[in-house]
Amino acid sequence: MNSQREKAEVFRELHHKKKPLVLPNAWDVPSARIFEDEGFRAVATSSAGVMASLGFPDGEDIGRGEYIRAVKRISRALSIPLSVDAVAGFGRTPREVAVTVKMIITAGAVGLNIEDFDHATKRLFPVRLQVEKLKAIRKVGELLGIPIVINARTDALRYSQGSEEGRFNEAVMRGRAFRDADADCVYPMGLVDPKSISSYAKALDFPINVMVRKGLPTLSVLGELRVARVSFGPGASYAALGLLRRISREILAKGTYDSLVEGSITFDELNGLAMRRRPLQ
Amino acid sequence: MNSQREKAEVFRELHHKKKPLVLPNAWDVPSARIFEDEGFRAVATSSAGVMASLGFPDGEDIGRGEYIRAVKRISRALSIPLSVDAVAGFGRTPREVAVTVKMIITAGAVGLNIEDFDHATKRLFPVRLQVEKLKAIRKVGELLGIPIVINARTDALRYSQGSEEGRFNEAVMRGRAFRDADADCVYPMGLVDPKSISSYAKALDFPINVMVRKGLPTLSVLGELRVARVSFGPGASYAALGLLRRISREILAKGTYDSLVEGSITFDELNGLAMRRRPLQ
Repeated sequence: MNSQREKAEVFRELHHKKKPLVLPNAWDVPSARIFEDEGFRAVATSSAGVMASLGFPDGEDIGRGEYIRAVKRISRALSIPLSVDAVAGFGRTPREVAVTVKMIITAGAVGLNIEDFDHATKRLFPVRLQVEKLKAIRKVGELLGIPIVINARTDALRYSQGSEEGRFNEAVMRGRAFRDADADCVYPMGLVDPKSISSYAKALDFPINVMVRKGLPTLSVLGELRVARVSFGPGASYAALGLLRRISREILAKGTYDSLVEGSITFDELNGLAMRRRPLQ
Repeated sequence: MNSQREKAEVFRELHHKKKPLVLPNAWDVPSARIFEDEGFRAVATSSAGVMASLGFPDGEDIGRGEYIRAVKRISRALSIPLSVDAVAGFGRTPREVAVTVKMIITAGAVGLNIEDFDHATKRLFPVRLQVEKLKAIRKVGELLGIPIVINARTDALRYSQGSEEGRFNEAVMRGRAFRDADADCVYPMGLVDPKSISSYAKALDFPINVMVRKGLPTLSVLGELRVARVSFGPGASYAALGLLRRISREILAKGTYDSLVEGSITFDELNGLAMRRRPLQ
């Protein structure tokens, strides 16, 4: 898996296996590298995780340049495919989104997530506009010779109007539009229960992504429900910070350090996780 | 605690309480902020933690500017005192170290660690040179009006020559020299067992810092041994990455996510940990 093009192809194929692709989302270099070292086949960034780590809330408050620099740091540390959460593309027009995608590909990524809502207003973009963005993203990949894997996210389950059923139907409509606009995978944010997951996967007959959260069925069940890809979202950040909270409470309340020292890695392991796998670009 | 000067004074006083000051070391914005929110009185950076997070091994491979930018991000997120691990000061001469210290203070920190060895060669600097650096650091603080808290680290227990006893005596000699050069605290890297800790503290009759590692006595015992300050070193990074390893192994082996979702924080909490407490400088 030498070239970026090959990596993109390998990453795409991982969406068409019998078992779901598990895609862990990292927030920085060592969190990404430990996933590679433990045997995951690909790694993604969590936008919320990366941005919080740098002192920004999830969304596009962070400057695009600062976010891309974080992507580059992670990309250089990995040898397996990296997918980047592009939020809503850091731009309102397909042309502006295309510039972001070019930066993401140049940073070494071979996949991306793109959202169909505005973080600041929580309003969904018109489907037609989102489809134009997807086409622009595909075109950038073609121009750069990288068949980038597009995970088209819809937040219609959360932010469209109407009844639960109406929102589900909106999410299906959007997912189909994104599928037909040459996305590689559709990511309906908010699916947890097996029945909804199954209905959605059947309605699209296409690879879908679900996020790990409490109550999500096990991987083998998700495979039966025809889920193609399971990502962590910001879950690794949530878990790590939950651990720091427990460590803090133990020390402050009891004056002991068991949760700090048990199950931890070593100094040499930490340094090893920071080493570059790829040269500077 | 409004001004940086007041913060420095408050931080210094915390080294002279009956109970040891517990100083948790963070690697990024939310890891620092969760420590503040849980009730620690001050926070420090872990050089290894910050550097690994950005894709560099511990030491001075990272550019000084990039390290200081990370310090600024953390500093802006905190309202309590921040101490920065200045490694060996990113410079060979007292004058060069002074420039680094000026950057650290300008970034908002009120304390620092300074080491007496070269990370690249693992050789100790001459005591006289290190004393000159400590004096230069104190002078920068005075010029800027910030009575910066200096934690003078010695790695003589690890990197000086000779028998165990000889190395211990070298560490005591260095610690006394740093104490007499107006350091606020001495940090003999490598002390774990109560007997050595007690001997060292008695030999200096001065605030000393020990690092949490497996086998370190509990806080109340450390208080009896006259330890002034207990820091995590890169322990929070070790622990967080150890957790990611367990999460990875659970998912890859069993297809379940218990260790990912149990005890984790929420999306809103993560975003909250990224919010600035202080304005941009």
